Amino acid sequence: MTAEENLRKLGIELPEPPAPVGAYVTWARTGNLVVTSGQLPWSHKKMLWPGRLGEQVSLEDGYKAARQSGLNGIAQLKAAAGGDLEKIHRILRLEGYVHCAPGFRDHPKVLDGASDLMLDVFGERGKHVRIALGIPDMPLDACIQISFWAELEP
Amino acid sequence: MTAEENLRKLGIELPEPPAPVGAYVTWARTGNLVVTSGQLPWSHKKMLWPGRLGEQVSLEDGYKAARQSGLNGIAQLKAAAGGDLEKIHRILRLEGYVHCAPGFRDHPKVLDGASDLMLDVFGERGKHVRIALGIPDMPLDACIQISFWAELEP
Amino acid sequence: MTAEENLRKLGIELPEPPAPVGAYVTWARTGNLVVTSGQLPWSHKKMLWPGRLGEQVSLEDGYKAARQSGLNGIAQLKAAAGGDLEKIHRILRLEGYVHCAPGFRDHPKVLDGASDLMLDVFGERGKHVRIALGIPDMPLDACIQISFWAELEP
Repeated sequence: MTAEENLRKLGIELPEPPAPVGAYVTWARTGNLVVTSGQLPWSHKKMLWPGRLGEQVSLEDGYKAARQSGLNGIAQLKAAAGGDLEKIHRILRLEGYVHCAPGFRDHPKVLDGASDLMLDVFGERGKHVRIALGIPDMPLDACIQISFWAELEP
Repeated sequence: MTAEENLRKLGIELPEPPAPVGAYVTWARTGNLVVTSGQLPWSHKKMLWPGRLGEQVSLEDGYKAARQSGLNGIAQLKAAAGGDLEKIHRILRLEGYVHCAPGFRDHPKVLDGASDLMLDVFGERGKHVRIALGIPDMPLDACIQISFWAELEP
Repeated sequence: MTAEENLRKLGIELPEPPAPVGAYVTWARTGNLVVTSGQLPWSHKKMLWPGRLGEQVSLEDGYKAARQSGLNGIAQLKAAAGGDLEKIHRILRLEGYVHCAPGFRDHPKVLDGASDLMLDVFGERGKHVRIALGIPDMPLDACIQISFWAELEP
């Protein structure tokens, strides 16, 4: 199955890739490597589930927010791949930052929202490495920020 | 305009690339990709504006500190490029960490100090992706740490 | 001296590369670049020195924990290199995250535990760039998380 077929099967319509919130761009390519800026859980220019895990944001909503950041990440990667998801050879790495209150330790469970999405959409090509960190003060009060690396076809 | 011409026009003299503060080096190259160690706002071996945004450090000084970290980053990249700024094909990515007090949310505005500098000096070649995070406890009490990625000419 | 000879000289037996704690893999390769997931101070499936620097974890134990994360990182890189440490051309970058209490500033000293190990094992090939950050809430209460980049032989 192709990534586009998987998206259809999952009933997912990719969002427009969100615009940057500062003096930067949203993806950059060197050789076959693409990296995105940090992706927040924007949906139609609205920030979903603002606040911190372990405070305003439940584990379940944090998982959904990670998935939403993942959708935005895929949209950025698709743009980097000239609009063709099948040109994405592999998802390489997710850098996951969870906005959380003191004492929160379940960062991996939250970030699985984005990781599971990569596997759902890209299958074997979606297997990636990950870092997972807790951040007490996130830009714009987003509950999640994730940067994505992918390898494109040559 | 070349990067050197832009620096002259801006009246900027690049600093010496700061030395590391541990058992590491300040830049590394693989293929055409160069990455720097985290750059702090050193100037002549003095740490400028120590402390946290939202506490001891104002938004305006944080912006300046990000710009100073950016100057140090350019100095490191220049060294990696054998002393020739025009061998820097493109600035790819800034990883920006803002030392901040609880409740601070304006990380993007602070980090624009470094991002704007990349555009001022490198023009189109300075366009980069970025991550922006708030860090409550920064090494050496620096208010900013930024790591730079660049693509060099082959 | 080869890396394997250095390990023998140091009396180090590399651990099994630890399994992931979420929906991700532990290393990924693109071209000659390998990156690992964040490595925690696991030893025989036990988390060594849980807690925060400046609180439950001393500077000395933090250094040891960084070294343990480094051993796990080398084990991951060895797997990525098909089991042959000499195929690791160079250690490129360490991303070091220190779980710490408010006010802690000695992140570089802690992370030197991993950096020193890279130099001990790989010699000149172990010289790397580094970022060093303080994180108040770390997954699984680990005191250290480090991601490793290496360049493999073509």
